[in-house]
Amino acid sequence: MELAFPTTPHADLEPLAFLLGTWKGVGRGEWAGGEPFRYGEEITFEHVGEPYLLYAQASWSSEDGSPVHFERGFFRPAGPGRAELVLAHPLGIVEVAEGAVRGTTIDLNSTTVAFTTTGSPVTELRRRIEVDGDVLRYRLSMATADVPLAYHVQGQLTRA
Amino acid sequence: MELAFPTTPHADLEPLAFLLGTWKGVGRGEWAGGEPFRYGEEITFEHVGEPYLLYAQASWSSEDGSPVHFERGFFRPAGPGRAELVLAHPLGIVEVAEGAVRGTTIDLNSTTVAFTTTGSPVTELRRRIEVDGDVLRYRLSMATADVPLAYHVQGQLTRA
Repeated sequence: MELAFPTTPHADLEPLAFLLGTWKGVGRGEWAGGEPFRYGEEITFEHVGEPYLLYAQASWSSEDGSPVHFERGFFRPAGPGRAELVLAHPLGIVEVAEGAVRGTTIDLNSTTVAFTTTGSPVTELRRRIEVDGDVLRYRLSMATADVPLAYHVQGQLTRA
Repeated sequence: MELAFPTTPHADLEPLAFLLGTWKGVGRGEWAGGEPFRYGEEITFEHVGEPYLLYAQASWSSEDGSPVHFERGFFRPAGPGRAELVLAHPLGIVEVAEGAVRGTTIDLNSTTVAFTTTGSPVTELRRRIEVDGDVLRYRLSMATADVPLAYHVQGQLTRA
């Protein structure tokens, strides 16, 4: 028996269905007074017929194509107007975030950020994701053990 | 510029290189006195030239192919004989785990398990992964808010 799942999204996913698909675009960011940077990016939101979305993000240097960052996790509807995110980062970080869904705008604030012994000491993350038709824009702020909450990255992607 | 990464694994990945590849097989489990269950499973460990592995797991019912579980995250070498895992589960859980690498056996104990408001109240996870050539075996124990640490699932997969 191979993996077989419904092609129709689970009914509970309807409030997040505007995210479904593969998105490609560019982003830019800055951190702690360092040089601003730019990157290419691809984000996918998939469903498997269950009440969650599989989320995968990859980004790479606009200069040489080398990997910049990856994120892997799951978005979950959590009742009327609410969403949850559980996420792992290759920097040795996990993130639990919750927040509001208003139309096609999601605001998520971390409720837990934890890291490994050799991981990056991130302490807080805030994300806004806005979809306008086939355009997705996001903006992320971050705090670490050394740096108070500050703007970090933003991007604009188009549904493939 | 598209994503471009080295085909040779990062030197720091050498102690975990035995995991690389796509693994397919079957698993079985039980929980809290419920009926034993069986599932098909695929696990992939990929590298992108950086000092971590991208890890993805999918499992599905042996009876009807419906999705059972997914895991998405990253394995990290963490100095001589040590490894770290950061992971997200669609049940609304994140996991940080650390432990020993002895040859091709990895033992990981969770250091943080956190969950969303509507997520499953998992409190502890312990994993053993053993590779013998092209065969991977794993065994996982779990504790929740209601159930003390107990054996949950095990599987045996073959490198594709």
